[in-house]
Amino acid sequence: MTVYLVGAGPGAPDLLTLRAARILAQADIVFHDALVAPEVLQIAFRAEKVLVGKRSGRYSTAQRFINKQLADAARKHRVVVRLKGGDPMLFGRAHEEIDFLRRNSIGVEVVPGITAATAASAEIGISLTRRGAARSVAFVTPRVGQGEAPSNWVGAALAADTVAIYMAAGEAAVIAQALIAAGKPPATPVAIVENASLPSARKFAGQLADLAELAAKTHDGPALILLGQVFSEAAAVVRPARGRRAQAR
Amino acid sequence: MTVYLVGAGPGAPDLLTLRAARILAQADIVFHDALVAPEVLQIAFRAEKVLVGKRSGRYSTAQRFINKQLADAARKHRVVVRLKGGDPMLFGRAHEEIDFLRRNSIGVEVVPGITAATAASAEIGISLTRRGAARSVAFVTPRVGQGEAPSNWVGAALAADTVAIYMAAGEAAVIAQALIAAGKPPATPVAIVENASLPSARKFAGQLADLAELAAKTHDGPALILLGQVFSEAAAVVRPARGRRAQAR
Repeated sequence: MTVYLVGAGPGAPDLLTLRAARILAQADIVFHDALVAPEVLQIAFRAEKVLVGKRSGRYSTAQRFINKQLADAARKHRVVVRLKGGDPMLFGRAHEEIDFLRRNSIGVEVVPGITAATAASAEIGISLTRRGAARSVAFVTPRVGQGEAPSNWVGAALAADTVAIYMAAGEAAVIAQALIAAGKPPATPVAIVENASLPSARKFAGQLADLAELAAKTHDGPALILLGQVFSEAAAVVRPARGRRAQAR
Repeated sequence: MTVYLVGAGPGAPDLLTLRAARILAQADIVFHDALVAPEVLQIAFRAEKVLVGKRSGRYSTAQRFINKQLADAARKHRVVVRLKGGDPMLFGRAHEEIDFLRRNSIGVEVVPGITAATAASAEIGISLTRRGAARSVAFVTPRVGQGEAPSNWVGAALAADTVAIYMAAGEAAVIAQALIAAGKPPATPVAIVENASLPSARKFAGQLADLAELAAKTHDGPALILLGQVFSEAAAVVRPARGRRAQAR
């Protein structure tokens, strides 16, 4: 008995891995998050699809119930897939499902996926690391669960050269305030990438001091906040105004 | 004129993305690193393959020459691919190629790849984040270029809950010493994953104090060092000794 815990990547259906596509095509049942694209679910052509995802806390299936559903399905079906947006091992709460399944003697095979930070980096064409300037990248989230102590995400965000903040666009004002209060320079370059990898991708660039203003421009797609010196040229990349104007002439 | 800067993922050919596979199949010429698997290169069935990679400094083509080759190829061919192991935007020196190509009015499209840290996490089945315990992950490398000042990778590694250290197995003793001297507890759980995602994958678990000893067990495949409390159960996962013994009876 095995449950495949599969990363669906950042959104674009063709950023799925070959392995993920093969497993989906063989799946009997797929438990998926709300953020997984319909085109990805269609690959699982013969599978029953069960929406169990949580998106920004708007609707949610209790984790305990998801765990039980997965275990029940593993006992009944040959190929059971738990499909999560991005990479399952980064902010995906994968451990809760893995722990439960292992305790119930059900095997888990994890198929990694493209995570939002590298998709966002690809989207704006700016590397997260840069020889001589950025040799460390922190992926953090200020989002904590109910009744959970806030973790020291600020410390990691201060110490790393480049920072990617997940699930954060709705809290941009608080984030900027916390970082600046802790000593991050207000002029630190920032970029926000919404719907990275999708045709609907939108990109914003500026400084940490303007983060809330930039975040207010996003719609309600998943958005990633990037900050660090590597993004100092993001404004030029994000708004190719000169090229557009030239074309319009 | 466009150069596709494509991530080949951690090693397993089927951890390539669908998009990367499609672009490779259309490629006229592929400039690739030494670590890219032959099966991945075979997908580029009609392309000229040019090895330009650097692996652990053992052989290397000067970056300036790679840049020039890419620009020349972009002017001559329709589909030019620069294929890098892992994700191009994480420790891949992508910016040097992107900067050069942009300065020469050649477009760059980046296709993200699965990076070693999430492949290693999938390999040992332990999530890099854990609700209530690990809300920040730092990807760092102690490796610096010739004549380059060492960056503050230790600071990021101290501040983040979970740490993935790239290109580091050969320097495990120095790394452990630096981290412990800076205040990381010697009992911090560590795991080393060599050849993550490949059939030849090997996994080792222990404590920071034993890091050099663990690293000495690796062969010469690419190895990633993971550390943080989330790996406290890694030893049980990495050596399923009980199960094997039971089978042998």
